[in-house]
Amino acid sequence: MAAIERHGVNARYSKAVIHGDTVYLAGQVAVEPVPAGAAEQTSKVLAQIDHYLAECGTDKSKLLSAIVLFSDLRDFDEVNSVWDAWVVPGHTPARTPIQTKLLTPPHRVAIQVVAAR
Amino acid sequence: MAAIERHGVNARYSKAVIHGDTVYLAGQVAVEPVPAGAAEQTSKVLAQIDHYLAECGTDKSKLLSAIVLFSDLRDFDEVNSVWDAWVVPGHTPARTPIQTKLLTPPHRVAIQVVAAR
Amino acid sequence: MAAIERHGVNARYSKAVIHGDTVYLAGQVAVEPVPAGAAEQTSKVLAQIDHYLAECGTDKSKLLSAIVLFSDLRDFDEVNSVWDAWVVPGHTPARTPIQTKLLTPPHRVAIQVVAAR
Repeated sequence: MAAIERHGVNARYSKAVIHGDTVYLAGQVAVEPVPAGAAEQTSKVLAQIDHYLAECGTDKSKLLSAIVLFSDLRDFDEVNSVWDAWVVPGHTPARTPIQTKLLTPPHRVAIQVVAAR
Repeated sequence: MAAIERHGVNARYSKAVIHGDTVYLAGQVAVEPVPAGAAEQTSKVLAQIDHYLAECGTDKSKLLSAIVLFSDLRDFDEVNSVWDAWVVPGHTPARTPIQTKLLTPPHRVAIQVVAAR
Repeated sequence: MAAIERHGVNARYSKAVIHGDTVYLAGQVAVEPVPAGAAEQTSKVLAQIDHYLAECGTDKSKLLSAIVLFSDLRDFDEVNSVWDAWVVPGHTPARTPIQTKLLTPPHRVAIQVVAAR
């Protein structure tokens, strides 16, 4: 039976949960201060993901899957330009983009990933 | 190769699918009779999740990840107050909240989880 | 440590990522030419999923979980009639339907699956 290890645990959720060699991160939105622009928010979200992956002993070259939530379709290209520069060529995850309302109005993008370690 | 075991199988989906030591539950909305309030719906959804986790030989202390779907942002605190009282302190899953329309109008909250066993 | 194998890799995402004996597919929408009808789109999406599962050495009898995204609730029965005829009886995945906007207006349905192999 694979061990479970949790990071950034609070009363509602954990920032990251490791099960065996699979790492589940909580969906990330840009933390305060939230930048206004979609590109700036995306950079911040991806830096947060880098941080939690590192805490779990892994990195973006081992991404398995990602859900990218857009609050506005018009941000698609701007978010993707930052995403495309961030991912490791040849190591991109299976990805599903969804347009939906985010829970907090200033947020334009949220990203949830699963990675190996 | 890890074995696959299915519970609550019907012609469209299974309520739970076990693969090795990972358990995938179908997204849950409150079953009939659907309570009107968001808190009451959340209690019912979480009881359903407890039931299927038990059928799979596991429990909420082994949650890995969760997606919480809200049909109305204004229910956020009410749903979370029930969620926060339900999760096991120190064992909270990686969680992603999404605001979206649910397929069935009386439903205000749907929750999909992945757990270890 | 389980090996990672990627299929259909481009600069933004991979069509399929295999980690050990778990297969993650990117969310699929019908490729060009996009059929107008929801049933026809669903057939095309499921054929694409069959294709990528085969590339990964598996098939729809080993589906673990699925998220089905509808852009319009009124397509629910039409999409499901194609889905129900496609799945293997007794081997249905844990499934979560979500109604949301899809990124591309002609698309009425998107499906993301995780499978064993």
